[in-house]
Amino acid sequence: MFTPIHVAQTLLKIRQNNPLIHNITNMVVMQFTANILLSLGASPAMINAKEEVQEFVQKAKALVINLGTISAPQAQAILLAVKTASEHQIPWVMDPVGVGACTYRSQIAVELLNYHPTTIRGNASEIIALYHYYTKQVTHHTGHGVDSKDQPEHALDAAKKLALSCQTIVSISGQTDYITNGHQTIQVKNGHVMMTKVTGVGCSASAITAACLAIEPDALAASAHAMVLIGTAGDIAMKQAKGPGSLQIALLDTLYLLNEEQLLHYAKIQLAKEG
Amino acid sequence: MFTPIHVAQTLLKIRQNNPLIHNITNMVVMQFTANILLSLGASPAMINAKEEVQEFVQKAKALVINLGTISAPQAQAILLAVKTASEHQIPWVMDPVGVGACTYRSQIAVELLNYHPTTIRGNASEIIALYHYYTKQVTHHTGHGVDSKDQPEHALDAAKKLALSCQTIVSISGQTDYITNGHQTIQVKNGHVMMTKVTGVGCSASAITAACLAIEPDALAASAHAMVLIGTAGDIAMKQAKGPGSLQIALLDTLYLLNEEQLLHYAKIQLAKEG
Amino acid sequence: MFTPIHVAQTLLKIRQNNPLIHNITNMVVMQFTANILLSLGASPAMINAKEEVQEFVQKAKALVINLGTISAPQAQAILLAVKTASEHQIPWVMDPVGVGACTYRSQIAVELLNYHPTTIRGNASEIIALYHYYTKQVTHHTGHGVDSKDQPEHALDAAKKLALSCQTIVSISGQTDYITNGHQTIQVKNGHVMMTKVTGVGCSASAITAACLAIEPDALAASAHAMVLIGTAGDIAMKQAKGPGSLQIALLDTLYLLNEEQLLHYAKIQLAKEG
Repeated sequence: MFTPIHVAQTLLKIRQNNPLIHNITNMVVMQFTANILLSLGASPAMINAKEEVQEFVQKAKALVINLGTISAPQAQAILLAVKTASEHQIPWVMDPVGVGACTYRSQIAVELLNYHPTTIRGNASEIIALYHYYTKQVTHHTGHGVDSKDQPEHALDAAKKLALSCQTIVSISGQTDYITNGHQTIQVKNGHVMMTKVTGVGCSASAITAACLAIEPDALAASAHAMVLIGTAGDIAMKQAKGPGSLQIALLDTLYLLNEEQLLHYAKIQLAKEG
Repeated sequence: MFTPIHVAQTLLKIRQNNPLIHNITNMVVMQFTANILLSLGASPAMINAKEEVQEFVQKAKALVINLGTISAPQAQAILLAVKTASEHQIPWVMDPVGVGACTYRSQIAVELLNYHPTTIRGNASEIIALYHYYTKQVTHHTGHGVDSKDQPEHALDAAKKLALSCQTIVSISGQTDYITNGHQTIQVKNGHVMMTKVTGVGCSASAITAACLAIEPDALAASAHAMVLIGTAGDIAMKQAKGPGSLQIALLDTLYLLNEEQLLHYAKIQLAKEG
Repeated sequence: MFTPIHVAQTLLKIRQNNPLIHNITNMVVMQFTANILLSLGASPAMINAKEEVQEFVQKAKALVINLGTISAPQAQAILLAVKTASEHQIPWVMDPVGVGACTYRSQIAVELLNYHPTTIRGNASEIIALYHYYTKQVTHHTGHGVDSKDQPEHALDAAKKLALSCQTIVSISGQTDYITNGHQTIQVKNGHVMMTKVTGVGCSASAITAACLAIEPDALAASAHAMVLIGTAGDIAMKQAKGPGSLQIALLDTLYLLNEEQLLHYAKIQLAKEG
């Protein structure tokens, strides 16, 4: 399940099935996320009003919840959406953007854990903060914003405990990505640091994770394949990019054109030894 | 009215007059829509609070209403805006994004028909769904999202009936675009399928329709010219695009540089035989 | 303080310190603004819910308030944010987008002046309108939208009076930018008219101003350096741009790669004679 050829099969299935992915995401990345999903071969929808989400989630093959610009009305819609997803066994991804930086969103993130996210995908700081909030270990907040200040390796312990306790997959993005169910951990070593200079690349990884979950029932494999897809696209896109502006565009082009041969050449995915 | 030279004249008038286009649109495409209008030569404004829309609509030369991320507060602002546009005879375009996919927005779309949109521009699935809702023929919803699952030809009958009944222009985008007032139907065969892999191209077609309506009093011609402008820009942009990312950028560059010679060479516009 | 070498030092400090910039901005430009700040070397956050802004502002090194898509809930969050910034002496920039075009936002902008913006950055029409509202000289509104219809020179008198009266810096962008504290005025002659055809370039100038204020305590210098940075990036980006689409991308790449040598070559900054 954890080889480049399996990633290529997942990509092919997405393109063949064009799964509808429902995104309730932040206002900063809505356009880029929709474009990433279109380039990948999925069908994005960004419906986020409380009047519509319950009806729409049921049509979707997967749901993305991203807390980047959470507000009270959006929190209400998100709760309705994840309850519906949970009831209808629609896979859903939680992207805990900025958890640890603000109390409000941290509390919402912990509440959402009750609705069984299939995968939680965040950077190291977010995963550490989420685990601390979940286990009520937090008495103060981190001093920074939405960019990670921790190495993924330092979040791995929190990720495994969170995965076991919530029966979910936790996917930490960083120089090496770690994707774990608590028992097994997959390493993905694709991607380039300049991707952190394009807003929404992390959020796109969450959206791609949802697209993979929509067609691949093994959630650990689907979540790992997603990190290979975005990371490999980044590796290839970097060959054309002059800076973060052209990288953003090249990512979309590359994802659209990504093929099995490229995946076999570039993908760096393996079971972590400690897994 | 329906020749490439007329389209070139419309484009020239937009550039000369720089009409102010008021957009109440979805959060996914706000940036791209504003950039499309700037590249075209119009002046976009994206004001959408209920406190401001009535005052601002009166200054605009045309209004765009797009339901892509409709919510209760936005619905309130939209109603105020279309009432004002209707009272002041300011042309307005309705883009019924996702109508048929959710009950809430479908009901709002039907309610908006009372305020006489100058043009309704959508994909085939949206036009079919809107007509069915309008005539109360719907008992269930379509199973998909915002991407069209129908061919434009199959929406033409609904489009003509809707146009006649609401005294509006209906513009269906697809491989062939059909623009009809119910009596006459114009065909536009420009554009490329990769444009459906860039989010907001349809919404941009609606914004360009508004810009054309701002300076061309014949609404059927204005609405057809708009589809030629976006379609021709797409045809030319495809020569530079490697994928959906670079296509998005090339569309803006091409629209900015689009000239009469290119329009005479590329534009494929004609009266449909059955019109 | 007002030489290209000082601008280069400011840029270097931003890259070294990666200051957290809190943006409460309009929905059109959120993505582009975040990308501009990332390319510059700052760390953007776009948190804008009333539940979160007070807590978050205190962590930020500077705050941007942009009125482009103001609504009642956002106005509430903005008031909380600027009060907090003012109490904690966190520098903040007001971008009065569209002031003069709508009464509601014009009144909010005047109210915000009570909380001592460090810098007000807008186009000539906005600065003139803001000054007139502030001094209660307005009896009617301007007839246009968010694009400036005035030359920066014509706003200089209003800018100086506003700066003196509110003890703030006023930064007017245009063919020549004027940055004034009422006593001294700096001229910046960088930039290209095609930058007005990319939505959010003005808003990005405000965000860059905040990033400069975050690391440079002299607010007049910081505000002037920001205009040199965006203007110089524009001058260099124009060498690669075919139109507004590729200009937008080239701006991000250029800002990321901008170096001291380029600043010494391109920057056109000086004290205005009348200052």
